[in-house]
Amino acid sequence: MLKQVQGGVCAAKGFTANGVHCGIRKNKTKRDLALVYSQVKCTAAAVYTKNLVKGAPLAVTKNNIADGYAQAVICNSGNANTCNANGIEIAEQTCALIAKELGISATDIVVASTGVIGQPLDITPIANGIPSLVSGLGAHSDFACEGIMTTDTKVKEIAVEFTAGRKTCRVGGIAKGSGMIHPNMATMLVFVTTDCRISAKMLQKALSADVESSFNMISVDGDTSTNDMVSVLANGMAGNEEIACEGEDYAAFCEALNAVTTYLCRGIAADGEGATKLLECKVCGAKDGQTAKTVAKSVVCSSLLKAAMFGADANWGRVLCAIGYSGAEVDVDKVGVAFRSKKGTIVVCEKGAGVEFSEEKAKEILLENEIEILISLDDGDGKATAWGCDLTYDYVKINGDYRT
Amino acid sequence: MLKQVQGGVCAAKGFTANGVHCGIRKNKTKRDLALVYSQVKCTAAAVYTKNLVKGAPLAVTKNNIADGYAQAVICNSGNANTCNANGIEIAEQTCALIAKELGISATDIVVASTGVIGQPLDITPIANGIPSLVSGLGAHSDFACEGIMTTDTKVKEIAVEFTAGRKTCRVGGIAKGSGMIHPNMATMLVFVTTDCRISAKMLQKALSADVESSFNMISVDGDTSTNDMVSVLANGMAGNEEIACEGEDYAAFCEALNAVTTYLCRGIAADGEGATKLLECKVCGAKDGQTAKTVAKSVVCSSLLKAAMFGADANWGRVLCAIGYSGAEVDVDKVGVAFRSKKGTIVVCEKGAGVEFSEEKAKEILLENEIEILISLDDGDGKATAWGCDLTYDYVKINGDYRT
Repeated sequence: MLKQVQGGVCAAKGFTANGVHCGIRKNKTKRDLALVYSQVKCTAAAVYTKNLVKGAPLAVTKNNIADGYAQAVICNSGNANTCNANGIEIAEQTCALIAKELGISATDIVVASTGVIGQPLDITPIANGIPSLVSGLGAHSDFACEGIMTTDTKVKEIAVEFTAGRKTCRVGGIAKGSGMIHPNMATMLVFVTTDCRISAKMLQKALSADVESSFNMISVDGDTSTNDMVSVLANGMAGNEEIACEGEDYAAFCEALNAVTTYLCRGIAADGEGATKLLECKVCGAKDGQTAKTVAKSVVCSSLLKAAMFGADANWGRVLCAIGYSGAEVDVDKVGVAFRSKKGTIVVCEKGAGVEFSEEKAKEILLENEIEILISLDDGDGKATAWGCDLTYDYVKINGDYRT
Repeated sequence: MLKQVQGGVCAAKGFTANGVHCGIRKNKTKRDLALVYSQVKCTAAAVYTKNLVKGAPLAVTKNNIADGYAQAVICNSGNANTCNANGIEIAEQTCALIAKELGISATDIVVASTGVIGQPLDITPIANGIPSLVSGLGAHSDFACEGIMTTDTKVKEIAVEFTAGRKTCRVGGIAKGSGMIHPNMATMLVFVTTDCRISAKMLQKALSADVESSFNMISVDGDTSTNDMVSVLANGMAGNEEIACEGEDYAAFCEALNAVTTYLCRGIAADGEGATKLLECKVCGAKDGQTAKTVAKSVVCSSLLKAAMFGADANWGRVLCAIGYSGAEVDVDKVGVAFRSKKGTIVVCEKGAGVEFSEEKAKEILLENEIEILISLDDGDGKATAWGCDLTYDYVKINGDYRT
């Protein structure tokens, strides 16, 4: 049984966090440096972007957690530290500085950056900000989340409680979106903490499996970022017997992890750049799970459908079109489509052809800010969900001149 | 030697065309029915969308030209005749009606439709419009082009003259865009005519090869349409000896065809929905041609880069990012990027890292309405060009409520 609890990334025992403005960004009211810290060493796991152009911090993190352990996460916003000649050096300096301040090893740090690509990252503001970042550590999951945000408009944090080995455990996480979101094996930045005791191997296994149906199923704009990363730190302070193989406890942990990641996925998609609506595409009746995933993701990625949803226009032909070019094997003459929101459900297509429906009712349903696009393929038991958002004037505005 | 000539789809001997308003659209000033006609029977070739959801007219056309011959093209706009239970029937009725009026066989018709998907197409306005459509046939390539336009803002037509077998031949074409443009083996609607005598087999061969580097290399919004089609009619009236195998004449024909298709590609991309700029991405130094194509297309498809170009923002990190997620094998540490327009050229990235450049000069270059994005991969001789456009407020506006 899962229970939602407060505290985000600080909900699990032994974790504290903080976020400060250190000066990478000009706007002094915006925190730009975040820290998540565990009292004790944690097993650690991460997944990274598959973009060939990778942020320097990812390489340093990968190296640091190669032994399966970490104790803190440091992340700056305002600069991606990517495509810079001295990127690795700066990321390593960041680790060294924060490790010294915390009194831990520099190789126990998960380091991340997000922001503009290709502008050298100055170590000075980071060095200056670290003392107050560490001295202010507390139950400040929200500050840490603010510190990693770029064009995000909302703090995205969540925590849940579950039981493993008769001990109460917690998993919590924070995430940033909100553009360049089309994760491939990872997403923008998501940091998860848990006090559950779980081996590094099983932690990585759980995370790698989870992202396939969570972060790999969201898209804001089809652009896979260079700096995507999801990491999990597990400090074992819940006192449960270590999860070292599959079984009941592992399943309980995976369920809790998925509750956290799914919540953050919805949050990232809903807070997509310029978005006014969360789109949730649920596909059922597919030949298999992969087919369902391919169809669901193609639909939430369609610029035309996304623009129609912004206009609350039940233009279901664009759903059919996106199914048709998805690359999935689908019998288009069996496809059914419906739109659903708080205001009700409306069927718009059956067996690949339009059915009469009330445009008025459709408009009422589509004016809500959470829209489900329900697709049945009548071809098996495969199902999948993908998340996206509408395409709006503000997406263009935000990205027409992001650097200034 | 190619020479550009006037006349579009009517430039080649024996071809006439027309476009009328028949009443599929409410706006009486918008032509919605187009005809291209040859005095004599033509060899015919076509390529079609790879979208699994296909417009009914495509199936009828495919069947009609299976024997390699056709004599006329009829196309309506305002309704795609796709995902309708009676779609095939309506497309066949259209062929029968126009064939009767022209006094030719109903199986010598290329039939096409473009517009909203999933709304039944009434035969009545088409039947009513056909007499004036036929009686008005003349050198009206522009009327025909207007008749197939949807959200296009400009007539896109071109013709060139070349020599085959010592005879002067002409190839001309018309095209529509302007949304749902991400062709896969074909594009939206392009109709090409020629008086060159060429066998149906060689005509198909030439067309199929051509689209790989022309229409398959453009994208407005990443949405592959259900109704894409490119067709060519060749009536042989130039009097050249039939081109029935590869050789000098075939090469001359292919060159002329490519001049027409490339011109139309640029026109479609520049007139993409809401577009203010044509983007031309030229990749060189790739391991092979396919790698170059993959990279070029990924770059012109990036929503983030498209928005940056709208804002005249030299955000080259987004170019690197799109190269990195393209799926192509690229050594990112060797990549060079420059922007070029009438106002000059500016190098922004060398060996995968940023170089200092004047933001002022970059802005001046990017404020032009034709922008070249030059990418060198320093890894071989492969090269390719892809065409796209910027992402603007008007794209969202046009597609937020397309059906009303």
